[in-house]
Amino acid sequence: MIPEGFLFSAINADINGSSSEKEDLGLIYCKHPAFVSGAFTKNLVKAAPVIIGIDLVKKGAIRAIVANSGNANACTGDAGLTDAFMIMKCVASELGVGQQEVIPLSTGVIGVRLPAEKIIKKIAPLVEGLSPDALRFARSIMTTDTYPKICSEKAGRAKVLGIAKGSGMIAPDMACLAGRQATTLAVVLTDAKVDRQLLDIITENATEASFNAISVDGDTSTNDTLLVLTSNMIDADIADIKDAITNVIRELAMMVVRDGEGATKVASIMVKGTKTDQDAKKVAMCIANSLLVKTALFGADPNWGRIMAAIGRSGVKIDPNIISIKMGGLSVVDKGLEAKDFDEDSIRNVLSVHHWRSGPSARGGLKEILIEITLGDGPGRFKAWTTDLTYKYVEINSSYRT
Amino acid sequence: MIPEGFLFSAINADINGSSSEKEDLGLIYCKHPAFVSGAFTKNLVKAAPVIIGIDLVKKGAIRAIVANSGNANACTGDAGLTDAFMIMKCVASELGVGQQEVIPLSTGVIGVRLPAEKIIKKIAPLVEGLSPDALRFARSIMTTDTYPKICSEKAGRAKVLGIAKGSGMIAPDMACLAGRQATTLAVVLTDAKVDRQLLDIITENATEASFNAISVDGDTSTNDTLLVLTSNMIDADIADIKDAITNVIRELAMMVVRDGEGATKVASIMVKGTKTDQDAKKVAMCIANSLLVKTALFGADPNWGRIMAAIGRSGVKIDPNIISIKMGGLSVVDKGLEAKDFDEDSIRNVLSVHHWRSGPSARGGLKEILIEITLGDGPGRFKAWTTDLTYKYVEINSSYRT
Repeated sequence: MIPEGFLFSAINADINGSSSEKEDLGLIYCKHPAFVSGAFTKNLVKAAPVIIGIDLVKKGAIRAIVANSGNANACTGDAGLTDAFMIMKCVASELGVGQQEVIPLSTGVIGVRLPAEKIIKKIAPLVEGLSPDALRFARSIMTTDTYPKICSEKAGRAKVLGIAKGSGMIAPDMACLAGRQATTLAVVLTDAKVDRQLLDIITENATEASFNAISVDGDTSTNDTLLVLTSNMIDADIADIKDAITNVIRELAMMVVRDGEGATKVASIMVKGTKTDQDAKKVAMCIANSLLVKTALFGADPNWGRIMAAIGRSGVKIDPNIISIKMGGLSVVDKGLEAKDFDEDSIRNVLSVHHWRSGPSARGGLKEILIEITLGDGPGRFKAWTTDLTYKYVEINSSYRT
Repeated sequence: MIPEGFLFSAINADINGSSSEKEDLGLIYCKHPAFVSGAFTKNLVKAAPVIIGIDLVKKGAIRAIVANSGNANACTGDAGLTDAFMIMKCVASELGVGQQEVIPLSTGVIGVRLPAEKIIKKIAPLVEGLSPDALRFARSIMTTDTYPKICSEKAGRAKVLGIAKGSGMIAPDMACLAGRQATTLAVVLTDAKVDRQLLDIITENATEASFNAISVDGDTSTNDTLLVLTSNMIDADIADIKDAITNVIRELAMMVVRDGEGATKVASIMVKGTKTDQDAKKVAMCIANSLLVKTALFGADPNWGRIMAAIGRSGVKIDPNIISIKMGGLSVVDKGLEAKDFDEDSIRNVLSVHHWRSGPSARGGLKEILIEITLGDGPGRFKAWTTDLTYKYVEINSSYRT
């Protein structure tokens, strides 16, 4: 379900030199200038494409996105910026648009120069290959992802399409138009007529409750980027389009966390009862990032003490004596103590549920472990998602580069 | 080498109900009232013995420490406090000292009531068994530790003895007299005459550069406690005794990190050139706690991009373009870019060095991987220690409780 006004392409450019035949260079072309909003990593070590992207998004309208996997173009200094500019220039020239209308995206290993000449040689055939096939683009940005991440939603006659990659170095912390870096790349395309400022607000709100609420390993990347583009071709109800964009962004974030490196389980961590949403977020992310919680999840170990310890060290002022915890709807902790009806076997069953490793079409039918934490009667609330920490995670990350 | 005025004992009380024959209840007796300083976990979820210990340390003089492994007495509410009081009372009565002169220490599973009656039955034989054998006490507080942690140092005629336990839930964050919780327990005993206030200052400074500088998994525990006691019997040069206490505390912290759950390697992370020591600490601990850095260490993968990413998300304002990184003295990153003489094979060799899993007598002969990071020309500096993240860590922690 492709929104009006966009075309896609992908090609193999052997960017990481492994001679793999996987497509690793992708292109999105906007037939007319598209409004763009963006959220970028808050990491102070920003990849070249992030530095460039932050600048271009401010200008507000673009014509193309050129993306590569296999190399992050991060920690590459001025040479990295020059490489990106050369590629943007070549794409612009082939498409007949301005260089400042082409946004680069990169993901992969840090600290290695992008093979710009290799890439440039492939740009003419890349442009020739433009078609409505968005899935090929989605595949071209995959790294350790086990499946391409793509989803869509309708808002009246208007369409919203989302494409993402990401499975490791996942703890996105993106600020809209303020620079964030990540191994999470996400592009959302719509044809709905949306005011530029409104698009910024929708993007910002949707990011906070989705990509900024997931954690695989707590490591915020140097390349994280979310771009939201609209071709402004179809009239649509603004509330509907807001919901559709929000849903698509959230679904992409869920696809990323489900595909977390080595993950076999996904847990949602709902924290409520704090003074502010920000407090709830701090507690939720502290639990989501706890190695002891993540390994207990892997072992289906009803070790609620690890959750209590994470709550206590989150930096939020809490009263341990009013904490309550439920897992899968069952009471585990009540007023800071083990609940009277705590049943270890039942909770072990709750924690034994594996999520279904979904392909691109797998909305629904997915299982997540519900962990609910109440810290008082305040209005603050936040929901985070995390994965278990497995042998496979260690395997993947102790041999990524080599 | 036992300081004057202290005796030790240990016994099996089957505290975790596993019918193991390991000693799990320990006692330290001070023949005369001993000055005491303490540092406790900053975690807001504090175990009963921590709540009690903070209070007792304020009073300044004690006669005994009763410690158990197998149960943390944490998240046990008023009942947990009552259990601890009953045990303290019984120990006090057997020793003929005041209840307020007995400090409890606990480590083990969270959220389960301490079997106080079982413990109380063992206190008479525990007291009967008092002897100069400190090693038995050291063994009694072990949980997932693979060896007892004990070391000593002399300052003239005065002696300093340190005993600790700890291998998981290790990211102590202790505030002197302000409450910290951890699975790190440490007791330092000396017979040197030291003023009470001076003892507080020595303890606080030594904690910051030792226990508060190590990380195995970034999870700050509910029970972390460090106690420093002096029997005040021997005249000693104050500078010498300060050095000896500091060395012993640091050596205990090193023993804990070396015994980190599943660890095969130890890296020291020296960060310098920041504005303040506090900034340097933030960066060092962010690197020390990074899963991607820890798995790269395991895989001997010279993936310096992961260190760059951790520096960038530490929350400290840094300029990526002046970062330099050395590993084992060899240049890896220079001014934010891969160093010109970066040699992947040499760095892989540096990262391949396993530490020697030391027993109690293993001062010296230990190998750590040196990682040095320079972030500018400011006066700030901090050294942290971390371990690699291995399959074994996942194995230990996905099946701890069960």
